[in-house]
Amino acid sequence: MTYRAPVSDYQFIFDHIVDFSAVLNSESFSDVDQDTVLAILEEAGKLASDVIAPLDRGGDLNPAQLVDGVVKTSPGFADALGQVAEGGWIGMLASPDNGGMGLPLTVGTAVNDMMSGACLALSLYPLMCQGQIEALEHHASDDLKAVYLPKLVSGEWCGTMNLTEPGAGSDVGALRTKAERNGDGSYSITGQKIFITWGDNDFSENVCHLVLARLPDGAPGTKGISLFMVPKVIPNEDGSLGEKNSLHVVSLEHKLGIHGSPTCVMEYDGAKGWLVGEEHQGMKCMFTMMNNARLGVGVQGVGIAEAATQKALAYAQDRVQGKSPLGNEGAGIIDHADVRRMLATMRADTFVARSIALACGVALDLGRTVPEQQARGAFLIPIAKAFSTDIGHEVAQTGVQVHGGMGYIEETGAAQYARDARITSIYEGTNGIQAMDLVGRKLMDGGEAAFALLDEIETFAEAARAILPKRAIAVWNSAETLREGLETVLTLPMNDRFGVAVPFLRAFARVLGGYFHLKAAIAEGGDGPRSRLAAFYIKRMLPEHRALLAQVRLGAQDIYALSPEDLTV
Amino acid sequence: MTYRAPVSDYQFIFDHIVDFSAVLNSESFSDVDQDTVLAILEEAGKLASDVIAPLDRGGDLNPAQLVDGVVKTSPGFADALGQVAEGGWIGMLASPDNGGMGLPLTVGTAVNDMMSGACLALSLYPLMCQGQIEALEHHASDDLKAVYLPKLVSGEWCGTMNLTEPGAGSDVGALRTKAERNGDGSYSITGQKIFITWGDNDFSENVCHLVLARLPDGAPGTKGISLFMVPKVIPNEDGSLGEKNSLHVVSLEHKLGIHGSPTCVMEYDGAKGWLVGEEHQGMKCMFTMMNNARLGVGVQGVGIAEAATQKALAYAQDRVQGKSPLGNEGAGIIDHADVRRMLATMRADTFVARSIALACGVALDLGRTVPEQQARGAFLIPIAKAFSTDIGHEVAQTGVQVHGGMGYIEETGAAQYARDARITSIYEGTNGIQAMDLVGRKLMDGGEAAFALLDEIETFAEAARAILPKRAIAVWNSAETLREGLETVLTLPMNDRFGVAVPFLRAFARVLGGYFHLKAAIAEGGDGPRSRLAAFYIKRMLPEHRALLAQVRLGAQDIYALSPEDLTV
Repeated sequence: MTYRAPVSDYQFIFDHIVDFSAVLNSESFSDVDQDTVLAILEEAGKLASDVIAPLDRGGDLNPAQLVDGVVKTSPGFADALGQVAEGGWIGMLASPDNGGMGLPLTVGTAVNDMMSGACLALSLYPLMCQGQIEALEHHASDDLKAVYLPKLVSGEWCGTMNLTEPGAGSDVGALRTKAERNGDGSYSITGQKIFITWGDNDFSENVCHLVLARLPDGAPGTKGISLFMVPKVIPNEDGSLGEKNSLHVVSLEHKLGIHGSPTCVMEYDGAKGWLVGEEHQGMKCMFTMMNNARLGVGVQGVGIAEAATQKALAYAQDRVQGKSPLGNEGAGIIDHADVRRMLATMRADTFVARSIALACGVALDLGRTVPEQQARGAFLIPIAKAFSTDIGHEVAQTGVQVHGGMGYIEETGAAQYARDARITSIYEGTNGIQAMDLVGRKLMDGGEAAFALLDEIETFAEAARAILPKRAIAVWNSAETLREGLETVLTLPMNDRFGVAVPFLRAFARVLGGYFHLKAAIAEGGDGPRSRLAAFYIKRMLPEHRALLAQVRLGAQDIYALSPEDLTV
Repeated sequence: MTYRAPVSDYQFIFDHIVDFSAVLNSESFSDVDQDTVLAILEEAGKLASDVIAPLDRGGDLNPAQLVDGVVKTSPGFADALGQVAEGGWIGMLASPDNGGMGLPLTVGTAVNDMMSGACLALSLYPLMCQGQIEALEHHASDDLKAVYLPKLVSGEWCGTMNLTEPGAGSDVGALRTKAERNGDGSYSITGQKIFITWGDNDFSENVCHLVLARLPDGAPGTKGISLFMVPKVIPNEDGSLGEKNSLHVVSLEHKLGIHGSPTCVMEYDGAKGWLVGEEHQGMKCMFTMMNNARLGVGVQGVGIAEAATQKALAYAQDRVQGKSPLGNEGAGIIDHADVRRMLATMRADTFVARSIALACGVALDLGRTVPEQQARGAFLIPIAKAFSTDIGHEVAQTGVQVHGGMGYIEETGAAQYARDARITSIYEGTNGIQAMDLVGRKLMDGGEAAFALLDEIETFAEAARAILPKRAIAVWNSAETLREGLETVLTLPMNDRFGVAVPFLRAFARVLGGYFHLKAAIAEGGDGPRSRLAAFYIKRMLPEHRALLAQVRLGAQDIYALSPEDLTV
């Protein structure tokens, strides 16, 4: 059983859940039409299913390796990534002015979902490039753009992000990498960076590192950080490749998963770099692309959830154990109530996570011109990142459970999904930090974006009462409970908010899930497979929000009451 | 940071949570006194912390391997298991008549907790032996006992359990391994068994396999299965070792975790075996030891949870990132509210899981003479197995999250706990099957054992109102909600019960957790570290039971409404 790209699910969600037509009707995407989008999704789906997915297990078994200072990549990755580049997928979000497709982020999100589901380790390569292209488009000088963008968009060169250092993880501002002015407009970069995804490979002509570093007169903390382009090979003025830069891969990490993705320790030893954006404004440049990057990581959770669900569903239909309680001769374990419950949970949450990610994409696309949508997109990002990645891992672990003993055997592949997915809750800002962003920065508007979402849910639920009264009332009630929770959170001092941030974020996602499932059910008139799944979700999974919101009024007091010694036995 | 055996936690739980004194006062253990028990726990703790724990990472890095047909074990395992045997830990539960220590199961459970926390892969070796000893003590003929028990108890020989076959996992009755009568009292066993834990090693003098097989006149299904002792080397009449038996290890599995534990595919090719118990009564023999085995696996979850909590706690105190919100100069990330929340969750659930396991042990110990206690023990077993192993994995995954990016790097060891723990929710009956056992077989008494537990909780909570009114009322209410849930479950047809079995089991554990935390708080007069942890649990974690119990009245109808096609996109 191989991964099959869920193109029809995107179509349904575009049409009935997230109002993708508004994106197509917006000025920003006047060149894109529905037929093109469908053709693009089908093309990406074929690439994901037929070319990329077959490499997933091999990448796990044959991790990227450091051989004589160069990263040797997993079998087949070079060729498949060549096809990704040729298909234009690396530059799919880039402006047509730079050779890109200029697609809406919503479509790009669906494509990233498929790539991640097919092979997460491989999909990180185009994702890193997308992020770099975005950063350069927004902040680089015209000279830099002219040299780098065409090569990055075409996929001849690739891009990386260098933020983390051994002593500076979540606290980026603690970084110690130094930049010095060379006097010729270029800079010398010196320092060590860790956890650099796809920090090197054996097939790209060049690897372009975006590196955060501090100039001698840079203030301490995040305010004194600047962003630099530091290429592996220094381009000549005519764009051809010149001499090798003073940087190298020190080692690769041994990770729980995504073995096919080389995670590098990078050493910069007076490496030549060029400023991106202004001096000391590096964090601002990073923030520009963090939105899309976080959505990109969130949808990795969706991709893995989809792949794990497909695999478990196929196994549960094939694997016969005991008599079917439904009396079906030769039926698989899917006929056992608890197994089917697990599968329904997986499918229901995959739909929620996907809908949140795509709703976030739509808001960010519309947000180019509509401020309220921009605010909505910003509010949804930490939810899309944290909830979807948590769900990716949970669904993959449930998939292992459906497989029983076979799930624990690596050859089956179910465990790999769980191992691969596990990083997504950690990188690009841990999910705890996402939740802090949600209750902190994203509520600085006094909750306006959040309340607007709740208003929308309640309005829809009220209208839905005529068709599905019980489900609609349950969803309306959940939104109202969430509204009370939100009002409580807004009264809390910041550090008390942080004590309830994670449960609050998850509760918000649960309620959004109720809304999206209700919408799906109404779209088919209240009767059909999506309505049955909606009933399952609203009755079994939505109630979790209440237990989560019960914590909101607690703040952080009961947490801090527990000293480190209290937690020791 | 290395694992430190939590001996003081057992002492506290013995004294204040599970009434271990009743075990010491019971006729069955008149030879055992409190001082002995404490000395035993401290001795086992030293072995676990100083000898076994240091081998955990090496076992993961250097898995057991099959070399020329013999299993080569991980470095240091042979020596450490020699010390386990010398300390008498393999025979700790065996009758003194057979050379054992005759300890209560409660004490053995604490010891297994420590061994599992120190190195799960290694601890499976003594656990398998304990199970075999128990099976032989109950069912073997005197002749078999005389040959095997002294060697197993001393640890010179080891034991395995052979149930699973490629087509017979949860459905043991589907097995195809054949037994034929040789006419001399012995039998010939032919077939293949999979997932055989510690199926071979390079240091025991003999490996004794207990094998389930079907005689030619055995009925289909579980009723026609018999149990056989099939040794790797056939003992002579004088007890010395004779010729090699016709069995061999075909291969070892590549697993997600417990790499130091050789999981074998075994081939029996007309191997000589001896009947244990009566013909066609093999399942009855297996059931005898399944109780203890399931508790043994449950407590593996506790052990891993303890080890993961200790590791994360140490890391969070050492790792500095950003300023402490509490203003503590140079404080670790433990000062961040969300990190401390995670650590408190880990500690609170480790305590619950441990208390449930030890309460189960006490009930089974008392159950030797008191039928009500036996029923309570039987009721608690699936909870102790499923909840504790789920918690083991959840806590280990939270530990990974506390470590951030470092948690994803294998060298850190946090991920290993998660990988190792993952099997415990699957083997010895998946946790779904445990839940089916709980709502099925274990409620055949009309809920008597369950209601007795709820009565006990409510009585305690009522008395506790004088000291901790809010916490006591919350616990009382949770027991009452659970009572209603239980009453509902009892009205459901069996297959509807199976649709809500997993949430019901977890809800029961959550409420038991409230009870045990309340007891801990009352034991210190309502003020102190355990009271603060109880407040955290009761306010933040106990509410989960309501969302879980909301599902109970649904039965399985909404699950079966979803066809396999409905779950496909």
